[in-house]
Amino acid sequence: MLKAALIGATGAVGQEFAVALNRHPWFELAQIASSQRSAGKKYIDALRDKDSGVLKWHNKEQVPDYIRDMIVSRVEDVDSGEFDLIFTALESDDARTIEPTFARSVPVISTAAAFRYEKDVPILIPGINDNHVELLNIQRKTRGWKGFIAPLPNCTTTGLTITLKPIMKDYGIEDIFMTSMQALSGAGRSPGVIALDIMDNVIPYIPKEEEKVQVETKKILGNLDSESIIPAPIKVSCTCTRVPVLDGHTEVVFVGTKKPVEPEQVKDAMMRFSRDISVQKLPSSPKDYIIVHDDPSRPQPRVDREINEGMTTVVGRLRKDTVFENGIKYVLLSHNERMGSARGAVLLAELLHDKGMI
Amino acid sequence: MLKAALIGATGAVGQEFAVALNRHPWFELAQIASSQRSAGKKYIDALRDKDSGVLKWHNKEQVPDYIRDMIVSRVEDVDSGEFDLIFTALESDDARTIEPTFARSVPVISTAAAFRYEKDVPILIPGINDNHVELLNIQRKTRGWKGFIAPLPNCTTTGLTITLKPIMKDYGIEDIFMTSMQALSGAGRSPGVIALDIMDNVIPYIPKEEEKVQVETKKILGNLDSESIIPAPIKVSCTCTRVPVLDGHTEVVFVGTKKPVEPEQVKDAMMRFSRDISVQKLPSSPKDYIIVHDDPSRPQPRVDREINEGMTTVVGRLRKDTVFENGIKYVLLSHNERMGSARGAVLLAELLHDKGMI
Amino acid sequence: MLKAALIGATGAVGQEFAVALNRHPWFELAQIASSQRSAGKKYIDALRDKDSGVLKWHNKEQVPDYIRDMIVSRVEDVDSGEFDLIFTALESDDARTIEPTFARSVPVISTAAAFRYEKDVPILIPGINDNHVELLNIQRKTRGWKGFIAPLPNCTTTGLTITLKPIMKDYGIEDIFMTSMQALSGAGRSPGVIALDIMDNVIPYIPKEEEKVQVETKKILGNLDSESIIPAPIKVSCTCTRVPVLDGHTEVVFVGTKKPVEPEQVKDAMMRFSRDISVQKLPSSPKDYIIVHDDPSRPQPRVDREINEGMTTVVGRLRKDTVFENGIKYVLLSHNERMGSARGAVLLAELLHDKGMI
Amino acid sequence: MLKAALIGATGAVGQEFAVALNRHPWFELAQIASSQRSAGKKYIDALRDKDSGVLKWHNKEQVPDYIRDMIVSRVEDVDSGEFDLIFTALESDDARTIEPTFARSVPVISTAAAFRYEKDVPILIPGINDNHVELLNIQRKTRGWKGFIAPLPNCTTTGLTITLKPIMKDYGIEDIFMTSMQALSGAGRSPGVIALDIMDNVIPYIPKEEEKVQVETKKILGNLDSESIIPAPIKVSCTCTRVPVLDGHTEVVFVGTKKPVEPEQVKDAMMRFSRDISVQKLPSSPKDYIIVHDDPSRPQPRVDREINEGMTTVVGRLRKDTVFENGIKYVLLSHNERMGSARGAVLLAELLHDKGMI
Repeated sequence: MLKAALIGATGAVGQEFAVALNRHPWFELAQIASSQRSAGKKYIDALRDKDSGVLKWHNKEQVPDYIRDMIVSRVEDVDSGEFDLIFTALESDDARTIEPTFARSVPVISTAAAFRYEKDVPILIPGINDNHVELLNIQRKTRGWKGFIAPLPNCTTTGLTITLKPIMKDYGIEDIFMTSMQALSGAGRSPGVIALDIMDNVIPYIPKEEEKVQVETKKILGNLDSESIIPAPIKVSCTCTRVPVLDGHTEVVFVGTKKPVEPEQVKDAMMRFSRDISVQKLPSSPKDYIIVHDDPSRPQPRVDREINEGMTTVVGRLRKDTVFENGIKYVLLSHNERMGSARGAVLLAELLHDKGMI
Repeated sequence: MLKAALIGATGAVGQEFAVALNRHPWFELAQIASSQRSAGKKYIDALRDKDSGVLKWHNKEQVPDYIRDMIVSRVEDVDSGEFDLIFTALESDDARTIEPTFARSVPVISTAAAFRYEKDVPILIPGINDNHVELLNIQRKTRGWKGFIAPLPNCTTTGLTITLKPIMKDYGIEDIFMTSMQALSGAGRSPGVIALDIMDNVIPYIPKEEEKVQVETKKILGNLDSESIIPAPIKVSCTCTRVPVLDGHTEVVFVGTKKPVEPEQVKDAMMRFSRDISVQKLPSSPKDYIIVHDDPSRPQPRVDREINEGMTTVVGRLRKDTVFENGIKYVLLSHNERMGSARGAVLLAELLHDKGMI
Repeated sequence: MLKAALIGATGAVGQEFAVALNRHPWFELAQIASSQRSAGKKYIDALRDKDSGVLKWHNKEQVPDYIRDMIVSRVEDVDSGEFDLIFTALESDDARTIEPTFARSVPVISTAAAFRYEKDVPILIPGINDNHVELLNIQRKTRGWKGFIAPLPNCTTTGLTITLKPIMKDYGIEDIFMTSMQALSGAGRSPGVIALDIMDNVIPYIPKEEEKVQVETKKILGNLDSESIIPAPIKVSCTCTRVPVLDGHTEVVFVGTKKPVEPEQVKDAMMRFSRDISVQKLPSSPKDYIIVHDDPSRPQPRVDREINEGMTTVVGRLRKDTVFENGIKYVLLSHNERMGSARGAVLLAELLHDKGMI
Repeated sequence: MLKAALIGATGAVGQEFAVALNRHPWFELAQIASSQRSAGKKYIDALRDKDSGVLKWHNKEQVPDYIRDMIVSRVEDVDSGEFDLIFTALESDDARTIEPTFARSVPVISTAAAFRYEKDVPILIPGINDNHVELLNIQRKTRGWKGFIAPLPNCTTTGLTITLKPIMKDYGIEDIFMTSMQALSGAGRSPGVIALDIMDNVIPYIPKEEEKVQVETKKILGNLDSESIIPAPIKVSCTCTRVPVLDGHTEVVFVGTKKPVEPEQVKDAMMRFSRDISVQKLPSSPKDYIIVHDDPSRPQPRVDREINEGMTTVVGRLRKDTVFENGIKYVLLSHNERMGSARGAVLLAELLHDKGMI
C-alpha cells in the first residue's frame, strides 16, 4: 500500500476524497490536514458545527469509519517524507503556496487551478492525454523537485475534453461552441450559491470559468513538445451558466470537424474509444468511460449523474449540425464532484502509479 | 372600441389574454369561447375544478373583474360577423381547423404554430418585420378571405429574433448558435412538465422546438418578395433545453457577423434600435424594447422577467466571440408568457390596427 | 421460491415493485400485468413513450435485467391458480374491482386504499401490529375466500404509526397533532403535481389524506377483537401539505401521553423498540427500524431518505412539549416510495409468509 | 414631513425599508447609514460587489430613484437630533449596542430581537395590541430617555398573532400547536441558506425560532399592567422548519378555544376583525388585513404572498379540530419580508405617529 496524505480534508472536495479513498486497494490515507480551526480534532468533530451540533458533511454516503476518528493535523505538521503521494483539495491561493512545499519531495495530485497554466505543468485526464505525463519529468528537472504537481482540469473541462477526444481522433476538430449549465456543488459551500439567488433562476455567469475551459481544452488536446505542450489548433468559445441542479454539469456542444461526419459515426467513435480506454484496468476507472444515449431526453443530471459512481461521461442528442459545413452537436453530462474532482484525482494517481511516476 | 373575441379562453394562454386585454384602450373583449366542458358557465366557474373547488388560475394578477362573470361560449357559437378581430389561444391541431373558419370573415391573431410555415403567412414581431404585414393582403387574395391568420412566432424565436435584428441591420449575420434554457410555463399545464421530472434537473430536449426556431428566425429576418418571404441567408443551429425556472426563456447566443464588430458597438446598436422602435406609440409596447446590462450576472429570469410587464427583451454578457473571425456572443431573456405569447399577440393586433389591417 | 404476479407493473409503484423484487430470496416475480395499452409488449417497451422514445422509468436504479424482456399481460389473463401471492399497484377504483377477483383464490398484498376501512380487513405494518394478521383468517371465513386482501396503510400513516408505537407501549397516548410536508412522488405521475404548481411553493391540501391518516393510525394502533379491530382510544388531528421535495415525507408530531415522559426516555424507547423489532430477520427488514438523531438539523428528506434503502423511519428533534401536561414533540421522516409503498408491501408479504399465511 | 434615518440600509432588510419608504406621505428618509465598508459611497455603489460588478439588490422593484445617489454614512455620524424617528435594520448584537444610543433622544423602530423581551418594551403589531403603546411611555420614564425602542415581533410571530387575535376576542384561546414552513428570505443573505442545503429538502430546525414565537405570542396577546405586560394565559408549542420557498411563511395552526366554535364563525370573526381593524386609515395599512379563502388549496406562498403588497395575512383550510373539545385548525400565510419586516415597521411608525408618540 502506498501512503497518502490529504490536505484540505474537511472541505467539500476533501470530503469527496475521504469517500473516494475508502477501502482503496492501492492507497492508504494515513494523515489528513486542514486549517487551524480543525487541527487537533477528530475528523468527525471537525465536521461538526460547534454552536448547533449540525454535521457539515455533504456526501450521500456516511462518513467512512476509517476516517471518523483520525486526528486532523495542521498543514505544516505533515511531513512529506513519510508519504508516497499527497492529495490536495485547496483553494487556488492556498494551493499556490502550499503545494510546492510538498512537491519538492513527493508527488502532489491537485484539484486546484493554481499551477494548471504553467509551461511545465500538464493538465491530465486519464485515458485522454496520458502521454502528457512525461511533462512531469521535465517539471521535476526544471524545478529541481523530487516530486511534482499534477493538477486536474476544471470540472467543466473534464467532460468536454473526454467527449471531444474521440471526435478529434477520427474526424479532426476546428471549432467548438459550448454552453454549460453547471451544478451548484461546483461552487462549493463557503458559502457557494445561496438559495435566494438560484431558486427559480439561472445565473448566466461564473467568474473566470469560460477562460479556464477555453484554455484547458486546447492544452489537454494539444501535443507534448520537447519541453511544453503546444495547444491544439482549435478555436473554443464558451458561455458558462449556473442552474438549480445539485450535482452534474450539463454541457451543450457544437463541434465543427475537419472531415464530414455523421451522428452515428460519432456515436461509434465514442463507444469504441470508451471500450478501448487506456485506463480500464485501474481501480477507479468506470465500467463505461462514455455512455451514448439514443433516448433524446437524455442525459439528465438527476437521472444520469450517479451511474458508475459518477465516473462516466454521459452523451446524448447526437445530431448533425446545421451551421458547420462538417459538424455535429450533442449534450453531455459529467459529474463535477466525482470524475471532475476527488475521484478523478484518485484515478489520476492510479494512472501515475501505473506509469511508475508515484 | 374594436370588438374582439377570444377562442381558448380558459387555458393558460387564454388566461394571459384575459389579463392583457383588461382595460385595453382599443379592444373590448366581448365574447369568450372554450371547449364543451366549460361552455355555458361563467368564466370564474369554468376555471374552478369541480371536485376540489380549486381555482385553476395561473396568473399573478387576480382574475380581472370584467371577465369573471362572462359566460363561456362554445366555439361554434361565436359569430365572426360580430367582431373586428379574433384572438386564438389553441393547440396546433385545433388551430388548424378552427382558425380558417374565422379568418374567412375576420382577422385572426394566433399564438399557435399551425399556419406559421405556409407560404402566404408571415410570422410577425411588431417592430422587427413590420413590412411583412403586406403578405397578409396576399394571403387574403390567395385564399379569398376577408380576414387573415396572423400567427406569432414560437416563444423561443421571439427574443432571439429581436436581439438579432439590430445586429443584422448594422453588421450582417452569417451564423448563429443558440442554446436555450426554457421555462416551465412554456410547456403549458395540460399537464406540462411534472415536478418529479424537472426538479434538480435539466431536460435537454423539447420536441420540435429547435426546428421551429431555426426556420422561424430565418423567415422573420427574411425579405418579402412579391408573394412570399425569402428566408434570410443565415445558418442557425439550436439546442433547446428545459430548466427548473417558472417563467422566462434564457438563451445563450453566439453570432458570426459579416463585418467586424465589438461588444460596445452591439450594445449601442441594440439601444438605438430599442429607442427608435417603430411600435413605441402602441399601447402594449414597453418603455424599453431591449435592455442591455453591463452587470455580468444579468439577465436572470427571476430578476428580469417582469420588467415592463414582461414585454422587454433583456440582454447581457455581450462579449467578443473567440471562434468566429467576426462575431459576438451574449445571453438574452424573453418572457415566454408575455412578449412571447398573449401580450405579444395584443401588441401585434395593435400594430395591425395601426396599419389599417384591422 | 414462491411464485408472485404483479398487477399494475408499469406505473410508478409497479416500477418500485420491479426493483424491490429483484433477486428476492423468497419470491419470484413470474408474471406482470398492466392496462390494455401495454399488454403484449416487453416491459421495457411498455415503459417507453411511443412518440418520443423517452423511457418513463422513475427509479434511481436501472430497469432490472430480470424484468426487461418479460411480456406484460392483460390483467384478465393472469391465472391466480398459478401463483402463491399477488402484489397489486393499482388506483383505488381499479383495486376495488380487481383485487377481490384474485383474493378468492390467492393472497393479495395491496398498496391501494380500496379495502383498508372494511371491518374484516387489517391495515398491517410489519413489526407494529403483527397480531392483526389474525383478522385475515376472519376475512377468509367471512368472505368465503381462499386468499385475502392485505392492504398497506397510506404512506403518510406508516412513519407516524411506527414512531407512535413505542411511545404508546411505554407511556400511553391520548392526543396527536401532526403536520406533514409530503413529497411529490406521493402524488404519483399521472400526472402528479406539475412543476408550475409546486416550485417555490407549498400546497396546504392533499384531498382525503388527513382523514386517511386519522382513521388508519387509530386502526393500526387498535386492538383485535373477536372479529374486528377496536380503534385505539386516541384523538388525532392532521394537516397534510405538499412541499417541493422529490421523495420522503416529513412529519411534525406533537404527542400527549398518559404518563409523564422525557425526550431521552422516548429516544430510549424508540431505540429499544427498533432493536427488538419482531421482523428483524425478514429479508427486506432494515438494519435499523428507527433511527433517532441528536443533531437538531435532522431528519432531512434529501439527506436521510435513502438510508437502509428507504426502509428506516428517521426521527429527530425530540423535545418536551410545552402545551401537553405530559407530552413530547418530534419530527420524523419516512420514505413514501419505499417503506411506505412497494418495499413495505414486500416486507409485509415476507411477514405473512413467515406466519404461514402465504 | 417627518425626518427619518435608516440604520443598516444596505442589507436585505434595509433594502426593504428603502422600497417601503419610497414616496411615503409622512416620512422622508433623510439619511442612511451602514457598516464601515459602505460608508462614503453612494447607495447604489455600496450595493455593488467590487470585484464582479454584480448588484446585490434583492427586491423585485428596482432601486428607488430617491435613494440611488444618497451617500451612506457611518452609524456614528448619524446625529439623532436631526431626526424625528430612526428605523433600524440590524443584527441583534449590533442592535443591542446601537439602538439605545439613538433611543436616548429619538424614537427607534426596530426589526431586531435585542430588546423584545425586556420588561418595559412592548412588541407591537398595529391593530393587534395598540394599547401596549402605552408601555413606551413607561420605558421612557424608566430609562430616562426622550425616545424609545419599539421592536417588531419575529416574522413568524406576526401572522400567527394576527390570526389568533380575533379568535381570542370572541372565543378565548387555551392551547396552540403551530408548525411553520418558513421561507428562505427569513434567513437573510449573509449567507442565509445555501442552495445545496435546501433544494429538494426540508430543514426541520431554525435556531431559537420556536422559543421566540412561543414567548412573543403570549406577550403580544397579553394585558398591559401598570408597568409591564402580563403574558396571555395561553400554552403554545411550535416546530419551525425551513422549506424551499423564496418568500412567505406558511404556518399550520391548531387552536384549542375556551368556547365551542365552528369554522364559519372563525371566518366571520376574522373578516369582521379585518374590516374593523383600528389601523385601516394608515398609509401602509392593506386594503384587507386578513383574507380568508374557501378554496382548500389556499393559501399558497407563491400565489398569495404579494397580495396588497405583502401586508395581508392570508388564511385558509379553516376546519373543526378533531382533538380539542373546542377547537379549530387552519393554515396561514404571512409575508416575512413585508408585513413581517420593513413594511410592518413603517406601519408601526405610522401608528405611533398617529398616537402622538412620534
